[in-house]
Amino acid sequence: MRRAVVLLSGGLDSATTLAIARSEGFDCHCLTLDYGQRHRAELDAAARVAAALGAAGHRVMQVDLTSIGGSALTDRSIPVPEAPTQGIPVTYVPARNTILLSLALAWAEVLGAQDIFFGANAIDYSGYPDCRPEYMRAFEALANLATKAAIEGSRLTLHTPVIALTKAEIIRRGAALGIDYALTVSCYQSDRAGRACGRCDSCRLRRAGFAAAGIADPTRYMPGSA
Amino acid sequence: MRRAVVLLSGGLDSATTLAIARSEGFDCHCLTLDYGQRHRAELDAAARVAAALGAAGHRVMQVDLTSIGGSALTDRSIPVPEAPTQGIPVTYVPARNTILLSLALAWAEVLGAQDIFFGANAIDYSGYPDCRPEYMRAFEALANLATKAAIEGSRLTLHTPVIALTKAEIIRRGAALGIDYALTVSCYQSDRAGRACGRCDSCRLRRAGFAAAGIADPTRYMPGSA
Repeated sequence: MRRAVVLLSGGLDSATTLAIARSEGFDCHCLTLDYGQRHRAELDAAARVAAALGAAGHRVMQVDLTSIGGSALTDRSIPVPEAPTQGIPVTYVPARNTILLSLALAWAEVLGAQDIFFGANAIDYSGYPDCRPEYMRAFEALANLATKAAIEGSRLTLHTPVIALTKAEIIRRGAALGIDYALTVSCYQSDRAGRACGRCDSCRLRRAGFAAAGIADPTRYMPGSA
Repeated sequence: MRRAVVLLSGGLDSATTLAIARSEGFDCHCLTLDYGQRHRAELDAAARVAAALGAAGHRVMQVDLTSIGGSALTDRSIPVPEAPTQGIPVTYVPARNTILLSLALAWAEVLGAQDIFFGANAIDYSGYPDCRPEYMRAFEALANLATKAAIEGSRLTLHTPVIALTKAEIIRRGAALGIDYALTVSCYQSDRAGRACGRCDSCRLRRAGFAAAGIADPTRYMPGSA
């Protein structure tokens, strides 16, 4: 079986991406980044999802991005917006996806994997620059110059199977693959039990996705959430 | 003064790069990566160099690449070669420079810096793929798609002022800028006091560089080193 590194956040998009990679026959080595994110419950969710979907392995790496800050997810003094905002919201984490992908690239090289799966989405998303297809193409180009493996002729492919799907399409696809989305956590300010606020950007996109997909939303919301 | 992030390893090339950035009038925020490297003394060297060369700040970030391994610098069971080898040597650390640059990119965005300085060299070097000019161009292209700052019109420039210099030229340039190279550590297996083995690839390139530059080599070697 071909090995792949799958970036797994614990959210809905990356869980679906893992299920797709598994359905394509990959031996999936999941990588989760503990970067000091506000929504720590997603780390527990990632472990549950990796186990439920038959990952070959799951590794959590730590990089303390709270020392850099600059985002509502890494600086507790910046509140998570609970209403739509103009432009790229403050939940954008500077260069996070580049850091994630560079760690995935390192692990892929050591595993001898030529494939990285990343659950970025550029349709029902918050406008983050590092979720766009042109960014993904640029990373793949970089990766194919960066490593000893590349020099020796191993071509790396960055798979982003949900990048052009609506949230409803992602949910239908995942449901068809048997994912229990109750295992996942999307909320940017979930509590330690993984219950969602229902108001942040991520909750709104998720909730609208289940509604549009016509699938019951299994998300556990905090008492009093909208 | 324009702010820049300067990647500082504690070695000769990055020290020279910092001195060049300072001579060009940049306010230099130095970033060192503690990735579990075998040659821990370079971390102390980086702090000395940052202070001696007037950095505005110096930050050490930690990413444990020993959990990934795949290099003589991150896996103690792989010996550091003490004679020239064919091809890219085992001291290559998978995707290390991509990880380094992605962290520098994150910090640059938060600092509002449009410039990153990186002391890669592609002349007297070990053939690492992520030290080549084409790799640097690909990273710069990625960086200019990756961030909120880029979307908002801030263009990032990756400076690699020593990439096309010989080791002797780097040393002459740094000496002219007043660098005390006794502060730096290049050896891949230096002891905690920063003394060099004199035999690894990095020591050989450094020693030959001082000889070719006609400048006395201030490196402290371990007793019994060649």
